[in-house]
Amino acid sequence: MAVYTEVSDTDLLTFVAQYDIGDVVSCKGIAEGVENSNYLLQTNTGSYILTLYEKRVAPEDLPFFLGLMDHLADRGFPCPTPVHGRDGEALRTLCGRPAALTSFLQGMWPRRISPEQCRAVGIAAAQLHLAAEGFGLTRANALDREGWLDIFNDTKARANEVHAGLDTTLEAELTWLGDAWPTELPNGIIHADMFPDNVFFLNDELSGVIDFYFACNGSFAYELAICLNAWCFEPDNSFNVTKAHNLITGYETVRRLERVELAALPTLARGSAVRFLLTRLFDLLNHPEGALVQPKDPLEYLKKLRFHQSVSGPEAYGLSR
Amino acid sequence: MAVYTEVSDTDLLTFVAQYDIGDVVSCKGIAEGVENSNYLLQTNTGSYILTLYEKRVAPEDLPFFLGLMDHLADRGFPCPTPVHGRDGEALRTLCGRPAALTSFLQGMWPRRISPEQCRAVGIAAAQLHLAAEGFGLTRANALDREGWLDIFNDTKARANEVHAGLDTTLEAELTWLGDAWPTELPNGIIHADMFPDNVFFLNDELSGVIDFYFACNGSFAYELAICLNAWCFEPDNSFNVTKAHNLITGYETVRRLERVELAALPTLARGSAVRFLLTRLFDLLNHPEGALVQPKDPLEYLKKLRFHQSVSGPEAYGLSR
Repeated sequence: MAVYTEVSDTDLLTFVAQYDIGDVVSCKGIAEGVENSNYLLQTNTGSYILTLYEKRVAPEDLPFFLGLMDHLADRGFPCPTPVHGRDGEALRTLCGRPAALTSFLQGMWPRRISPEQCRAVGIAAAQLHLAAEGFGLTRANALDREGWLDIFNDTKARANEVHAGLDTTLEAELTWLGDAWPTELPNGIIHADMFPDNVFFLNDELSGVIDFYFACNGSFAYELAICLNAWCFEPDNSFNVTKAHNLITGYETVRRLERVELAALPTLARGSAVRFLLTRLFDLLNHPEGALVQPKDPLEYLKKLRFHQSVSGPEAYGLSR
Repeated sequence: MAVYTEVSDTDLLTFVAQYDIGDVVSCKGIAEGVENSNYLLQTNTGSYILTLYEKRVAPEDLPFFLGLMDHLADRGFPCPTPVHGRDGEALRTLCGRPAALTSFLQGMWPRRISPEQCRAVGIAAAQLHLAAEGFGLTRANALDREGWLDIFNDTKARANEVHAGLDTTLEAELTWLGDAWPTELPNGIIHADMFPDNVFFLNDELSGVIDFYFACNGSFAYELAICLNAWCFEPDNSFNVTKAHNLITGYETVRRLERVELAALPTLARGSAVRFLLTRLFDLLNHPEGALVQPKDPLEYLKKLRFHQSVSGPEAYGLSR
């Protein structure tokens, strides 16, 4: 939940006057997203999301993120569409921060995940991968293996405050991943953060995917590995193989996975678990006093890592190939 | 900013099915209000506010609050109207908490306050006082002088951690107020928390007053004293006499203040400053680790108290009578 920057009514009216979206009737900070400040803006023509980009988003990445949303929406993928001002620009400044308006997506993110929703997420991930083809910009994944090592170096001295032996567990896993990581998988643009709170459903149908601020170039199967971790574990950290089966077979109704991608899934899932374990560990250790955002539990991802360490192959994810 | 209770999509749909408001298309936690969890709910028929009442609101007070909003809205006062379900009830349960739906008010609360807005607030306060006449329920002010003493007793041991000598300042002021407090002023139902974030404006017109969860029986002039503190000091804690003049003369265009009410204003303003100083002090001293709400600065109200201690009469508020 996050509104880091308060937008005054006068600043808002000046900002909105640059767009052709009618007159403001309401603007409320919304308690979603942890990286940026988000407002639900209502005008007499409709609803919009106003986002002010806070310090965790690099301003130089914004043309990639906004351009990608434009590209995907043009191709029919259900994601927020940046609203362009009368000057053609989608990105401008508000309260000293980069800011953009996007279309409002109907739907709600699921708090209790059903197996059918996992199938829909797999389908959407594949649709996103295909729809992103032809987008002209690229962005390296800042949270790749090199990024993991940087975060590990910043956290290892205090990792054991969170869990005994976490430093050696992480060090061994990072070494293992350094050797085992597959580098020649089919790739393109991935969302890289397709967690339940970034996927909306309406009447049991997936209605949209939001929050493209980790999108980057990467292997398609790594996206699925992130989704395996984000969608297929129960609240008690048990692994739901039906959900995993649905996720992957849903994906394959749109884009068939190659044999090397399937074989790489356990390794990619371990890497994905390490990525979220490390960023959550960093956030927990660097949680400012009185912060507005509750840090997420890094140990949830230690348990997920251990599950993937224990599997013998992609069959563990409900696949028979 | 506050969403203390997460409402699942399935629980929400069951809840909304009890009302005749159409189908849910979106529901977002909103970062406003510090006492309760608030969601902006959109259906295919319109926008609504869903409130889950958290522990600071006594469930037995809810019929008063919701009934008052019904009463005021019926008389044309711009406030949220409780939505009644098909069974006629406005108050039910969601996620184990008392919950209610109200109509959505257009407008935004002002971050930079203009003198004209102060006039509008004065007018609205008087309209509220007159519109509330005839409402059948009563509610004592839990934050009256007795309530202040209770909070003082709970905070005095640690008050000086916040400001040197704050304990003796408060003790002396509470003693003074015990003698000086006027008890026979014209009274009725007051809002008792008409701060800028509870008053919406649209196109320079006051469009609504929200958050009736401190409403109670009290003297009308005490409402004005609260507004003097909340609306007429600049961010640097200087007192803007033009704003005060507008507030009070705006009020008097609707309801003429009696001579005793005017004479009591400095005392009431001191009491109001003590009330918010004490509750903010309590909240700061009892601020839980990792809480979602930033505590407000109690010392802002110490400065306001000192201003009112220094005035010689109601003329200090821009009045010539």
